[in-house]
Amino acid sequence: MLDIIAFDADDTLWHTESLYAEVQEKFVHLLAPYVDSEKAMAILNAAEIRNIPYFGYGIKSFTLSMIEAAIELSAGQIAGSQLNEVLALSKMMVTAPVQLLDHAEATVAQLAQTHGLMLITKGDLLDQESKIERSGLARYFKYIEVVSDKTTASYGAVLSKYQVSPERFLMVGNSLRSDILPVVALGGAAVYIPYHITWTHEVVAPSPAEQGSYYQLDHLGLLPAWVEAWTAKRQPSQAETQSPAA
Amino acid sequence: MLDIIAFDADDTLWHTESLYAEVQEKFVHLLAPYVDSEKAMAILNAAEIRNIPYFGYGIKSFTLSMIEAAIELSAGQIAGSQLNEVLALSKMMVTAPVQLLDHAEATVAQLAQTHGLMLITKGDLLDQESKIERSGLARYFKYIEVVSDKTTASYGAVLSKYQVSPERFLMVGNSLRSDILPVVALGGAAVYIPYHITWTHEVVAPSPAEQGSYYQLDHLGLLPAWVEAWTAKRQPSQAETQSPAA
Repeated sequence: MLDIIAFDADDTLWHTESLYAEVQEKFVHLLAPYVDSEKAMAILNAAEIRNIPYFGYGIKSFTLSMIEAAIELSAGQIAGSQLNEVLALSKMMVTAPVQLLDHAEATVAQLAQTHGLMLITKGDLLDQESKIERSGLARYFKYIEVVSDKTTASYGAVLSKYQVSPERFLMVGNSLRSDILPVVALGGAAVYIPYHITWTHEVVAPSPAEQGSYYQLDHLGLLPAWVEAWTAKRQPSQAETQSPAA
Repeated sequence: MLDIIAFDADDTLWHTESLYAEVQEKFVHLLAPYVDSEKAMAILNAAEIRNIPYFGYGIKSFTLSMIEAAIELSAGQIAGSQLNEVLALSKMMVTAPVQLLDHAEATVAQLAQTHGLMLITKGDLLDQESKIERSGLARYFKYIEVVSDKTTASYGAVLSKYQVSPERFLMVGNSLRSDILPVVALGGAAVYIPYHITWTHEVVAPSPAEQGSYYQLDHLGLLPAWVEAWTAKRQPSQAETQSPAA
């Protein structure tokens, strides 16, 4: 029924956005002599989105955006010594312990017994590889892909690389924009498991048609039973298409 | 005789180190009010090497190191507004036109007619993908791999991913440390084509045994004829191992 169950990593298998939120709070505190927190967050967010075409996703791009926003918010007055604190935050982020979400390991271990699993994550190559290694989950994944962006085209490239047809591909993730809608657009299935914080850049309002096109679960622990029920439900309809002689 | 001829990209197929050198010159000029150029270069280089474990290779890591070094060299006195110039240099680097080395396109086009070609490059995922795309050379490569580092282990992982045995693998590149010695250590063949500038981090002194273990050419234009002569020379020894009946 399914060749591949693919997982997003950040905020699907392990906590990430909470680390960004913690660092943003420290950034706002650093800029407090110049601007209020609302303004600081707005300018930082604008810098992040403006810099994606130059620097992509991930901690290094976020750090360069923090430095750019700090310079803008302080009208160029911020001292180099204060920007050192931003660099220190960045190094803290890349070395922070990987904290798995509840049920992540048990769910992945269970599904790996019955399905080929793939990890698809975007961001800095070295940082993502390091987190996969430190997560202890690498051994459950048959394929691991770090991509620069998650679009219908990039999912299409991954599927064709491994010769997997979209109908036999299920994606699990916490971002409608990056994990769910591009896969649905390709003809794949997708399970949306929201995280309690979502970066504004990843927020999209799905159209009514799109809203009916994917599944949603409250947490990862529900996934194995859902996969079993869903594949069982699909089975008969596929059997009907077989010739009686088969 | 050969399943794959693999090429490094930066300073093997297109100019890169010359762009870094140009930006380093501007960095030194920016820091001239504080320190002389020799000191500026030494501290920048130390920051780059110190930051590889945190940020890896590539322009974003280099930019974060320039900012860190500028803060250190100015004893924290450099103004945010001057660091904006560093950010501007970084964006210039990621959008700079891709300048192919002499003979790069003709050589790759010719070898692609007779061999499977692979591109193996390290650095920022988005930046490397963008350069590959803009180079116009992507269509000649059967496989493209962006890796976070080039070690014997990382080459081993790539070869096993594509099920290529080292004896049927030839690597071409400008860095003894990253392109040549790790491949030779695996049992592969390697052609070293020096570029006129080498980052000090990439400079290694090969042992006498290592010196005899790879080939060296003056420029890419010599590669197709060399490959032809080299494979012809290897052929008879392989033929001898076949049974007469074959």
